[in-house]
Amino acid sequence: MKLSVLQKARYEYQPKLPAALKQALDLISMKIGEATKSVADQEEVKALFPATYGKPLVTFRSGASSPNRNPLRVGVILSGGQAPGGHNVIAGLFDGLKKGNADSKLFGFLNGPAGLIDGKYKEIDAAFIDEYRNTGGFDIIGSGRTKIETDAQVASSLEVAKKMKLDAVVIIGGDDSNTNAALLAEHFIKADLKTQVIGVPKTIDGDLKNDMIETSFGFDTATKTYSELIGNIARDANSAKKYWHFIKLMGRSASHIALECALSTQPNVCLISEEIENEKKTLGQITQYLCDIIAKRAENEENFGIVLIPEGLIEFIPEMKTLISELNDAMAKHADEFTRLKTFAEEYAWVEKTLSKTSVQVFASLPEEISKQLLMDRDPHGNVQVSRIETEKLLLGLVQKELAARKNAGTYKGSFSGYTHFFGYEGRCAFPSNFDADYCYSLGFTAFLLIAQGLTGYLSSVRNLTAPADEWQAGGVPLTMMMNMEQRHGSKKPVIKKALVELDGKPFQEFAKNRDKWAITTSYLYPGAIQYYGPTEVCDAASKTLQLEQGKAKR
Amino acid sequence: MKLSVLQKARYEYQPKLPAALKQALDLISMKIGEATKSVADQEEVKALFPATYGKPLVTFRSGASSPNRNPLRVGVILSGGQAPGGHNVIAGLFDGLKKGNADSKLFGFLNGPAGLIDGKYKEIDAAFIDEYRNTGGFDIIGSGRTKIETDAQVASSLEVAKKMKLDAVVIIGGDDSNTNAALLAEHFIKADLKTQVIGVPKTIDGDLKNDMIETSFGFDTATKTYSELIGNIARDANSAKKYWHFIKLMGRSASHIALECALSTQPNVCLISEEIENEKKTLGQITQYLCDIIAKRAENEENFGIVLIPEGLIEFIPEMKTLISELNDAMAKHADEFTRLKTFAEEYAWVEKTLSKTSVQVFASLPEEISKQLLMDRDPHGNVQVSRIETEKLLLGLVQKELAARKNAGTYKGSFSGYTHFFGYEGRCAFPSNFDADYCYSLGFTAFLLIAQGLTGYLSSVRNLTAPADEWQAGGVPLTMMMNMEQRHGSKKPVIKKALVELDGKPFQEFAKNRDKWAITTSYLYPGAIQYYGPTEVCDAASKTLQLEQGKAKR
Repeated sequence: MKLSVLQKARYEYQPKLPAALKQALDLISMKIGEATKSVADQEEVKALFPATYGKPLVTFRSGASSPNRNPLRVGVILSGGQAPGGHNVIAGLFDGLKKGNADSKLFGFLNGPAGLIDGKYKEIDAAFIDEYRNTGGFDIIGSGRTKIETDAQVASSLEVAKKMKLDAVVIIGGDDSNTNAALLAEHFIKADLKTQVIGVPKTIDGDLKNDMIETSFGFDTATKTYSELIGNIARDANSAKKYWHFIKLMGRSASHIALECALSTQPNVCLISEEIENEKKTLGQITQYLCDIIAKRAENEENFGIVLIPEGLIEFIPEMKTLISELNDAMAKHADEFTRLKTFAEEYAWVEKTLSKTSVQVFASLPEEISKQLLMDRDPHGNVQVSRIETEKLLLGLVQKELAARKNAGTYKGSFSGYTHFFGYEGRCAFPSNFDADYCYSLGFTAFLLIAQGLTGYLSSVRNLTAPADEWQAGGVPLTMMMNMEQRHGSKKPVIKKALVELDGKPFQEFAKNRDKWAITTSYLYPGAIQYYGPTEVCDAASKTLQLEQGKAKR
Repeated sequence: MKLSVLQKARYEYQPKLPAALKQALDLISMKIGEATKSVADQEEVKALFPATYGKPLVTFRSGASSPNRNPLRVGVILSGGQAPGGHNVIAGLFDGLKKGNADSKLFGFLNGPAGLIDGKYKEIDAAFIDEYRNTGGFDIIGSGRTKIETDAQVASSLEVAKKMKLDAVVIIGGDDSNTNAALLAEHFIKADLKTQVIGVPKTIDGDLKNDMIETSFGFDTATKTYSELIGNIARDANSAKKYWHFIKLMGRSASHIALECALSTQPNVCLISEEIENEKKTLGQITQYLCDIIAKRAENEENFGIVLIPEGLIEFIPEMKTLISELNDAMAKHADEFTRLKTFAEEYAWVEKTLSKTSVQVFASLPEEISKQLLMDRDPHGNVQVSRIETEKLLLGLVQKELAARKNAGTYKGSFSGYTHFFGYEGRCAFPSNFDADYCYSLGFTAFLLIAQGLTGYLSSVRNLTAPADEWQAGGVPLTMMMNMEQRHGSKKPVIKKALVELDGKPFQEFAKNRDKWAITTSYLYPGAIQYYGPTEVCDAASKTLQLEQGKAKR
């Protein structure tokens, strides 16, 4: 296998662990905290998780201990979208297992939860894991989005775990995957199997976050990569002085990524979905907001700028949400009728007679390219594929139209030329930053400690993350503690509550305090490429979001 | 001014100089080589450059010397598209000037050659230049694409230079800008002004290259940035195992960028425009080539991949070149008629009756979105805006159509889902790699040496670039030496010959030797982000292209 020079160099990096975890295993004691309860709907959640509900928080610290030192057999699953650092979680878990007993074995289930259902796995040994240390990607064993949901899938998973004599399964995933991990833990107990289940909080989106989970892994690296690119483009804009760049950023359900990138690069505009939903903004209002800033900058002869747009934006604009929902309903109800339509003009006429008056107006206001995307790009269930809608082009199109109107009216005299970008895949598999490399390795090692202490239905937790790694606090959080009941596909389900951007939180407040200045006065920051070597302030800093949340940001 | 941590750290970096240039100025001697001649059309070029034609190559080495140590007044211009390292050229020039005489002054003309024409400039002093050392962008003084061409522009430039009492002007630019530099040098001599003109070879495209200029600056950083992103996406593809990514890369006139990125990341496909033109490939043949690889990988259950596409591709496909040229001609000739057409259907009918039969067939084979781009997005002269054509979407569209046909015919059984990307602005203003930081600083310092030796019409040259910087060889190349005569806008003009990818050159040969393997067997390399600190093999290596050309690549 031929390797890049950086990959070879990164193999040599030794991730940092919290001081307590560097000791001999029998000197790492587990402190048991108070019993917990779910964040809401306690009775319902408790009823669904009779065996694992209400367990205590636990933390690891120095002190005499007698963890399970028998040879263990553990399976590990990478679930859902890629996030930088997944390989290091597995490395930390592997090193923990071997520290516990050299005869312990780690098995990687292939291509996500499907690997457990189908019993497809490979053993991860020392030589193999060494090829993935401190690297990005989930290619070590692949990932997948299959869920262990149906009775057959659950039965099959139990069967495989039993046959493999698994002491534990570690599921590395986001909120959905960890909800599934909690359910699986219950199934194992109910079936009287010894297999414990431990989750690890992964997602670049940053929406798996709460009092006990300061950040999900991958967020730091992904946002640093996007910020590198935004900074480079901003510097280009500020040099060429003639283009507006509309940049969409991955992250559908929350705007943490866009907000973090805004704090790191100080663009002219960053739209925050949560705020737009809260203020019930329309597409027209957003367009006016953008055009006002563009016009103001043009008055200063700055016909260039940077606009950041969260991927999920249109689902947070009430009128667009309604339009999409009406479209989905109408097409489901009148599928045959719609399928017979041949041209866009026919489809357009059908929309006009089928949807509500408000939605027809919104539909008519969209650039043609976007209306077509709404009608044509549909998923296998016939629903609008929101993630394929080019929101950045939608906004650019609306802005161009409005600026042309203002020019005609004589109220805008600038010149406008726009480019669009979408960054997502560029950051999900980057080499993890030192922060993510250390954090993930610590999460993996902690997952082992939770197993060795006999726990199940827990999420691995490492906290105090803006302090040096030595001072990080490792522990475990009962998965049920983070749950509430939500309506999903027509029925109430237990789910881990998603963390949206809090409009009264410090990161958003910091942004809100500065954005009017950034809008008009060019104030770009150029973060540059992630550095893995060099001065510690350059290569070890946590995200701005985390620093602000923990009151440690230097302004 | 608030700064990123990397920016602050980069201010402290001291760029490396060739050993000979580190000495006291009176120990840096200039060796005068043989007289030169232009690469072709010697008589014609000589006639156009009577004062500067045929000058000798010069090199700087250790030895007694007596350069001009008077206080100098020098102007500097950033011309054309941004390239990482421009700020360091100016820093090297500044430091050289101050080393020559503390009273020397450097003036930066604002926003490109227009600054010289209009006499708009600012003085660059020590505190100011310190804010730009080792950073990307051209924002120190801005850049622009105005050319000093008309008599009025030339007269105005001479006037400004005279009024400012300029000893020299340094023009940092690509092939066109340096052609203009050569002409300006002649104008100054003819007008009996003392102002010397020195060029510096800039362009991320890598097409300003010849025996004396091993590489233009910025190519290294830009390709390393694109390769970072391609590698990240490749690792994502190899983890998710379900997407083909079609990635277009900046660089219209040559495919050096795509080739360098291919050598750095080993994608499944990289199209090289020069080869496609040479073999007179059609769009249909390119589509078949892509689909054959996609189908073959699908047989191995690898329904994912990476395709690199040079930005200028369609201008190298003979049938597309003809189509675009016929469209431009027809629209120029029948502008009024075409403008009256209202719908795409009417325009389509017009194309059918106006263009040649072959071009109509090619036009009909294009996805509708692309046909519309050809007809609608036109520049102020009415020409097709080739750079706005989404070649990556064109190819993806053609591939989807062909795969659907093969699926119907039962000859393809895979599943295909594609994403497109375009990387350009992401890399032009990155913090320069150590290589570019050192190279640019050396080029700027050498530009000063050429001025102090009284030369004009020279390009600053630093060679032996795959050796450690200590062993680099600085010198000067007469600009006329790189020229030939070419047809431009209806008349023959002297121009610096563009370097295209040589199909018998080592970089392309290395790629050609491996590409069939890379196509089918997943062999991605993950270069990761540019590193400025750390092991020298990680942070100081020259481009693969340069290493192969100089026989120094480790395979």
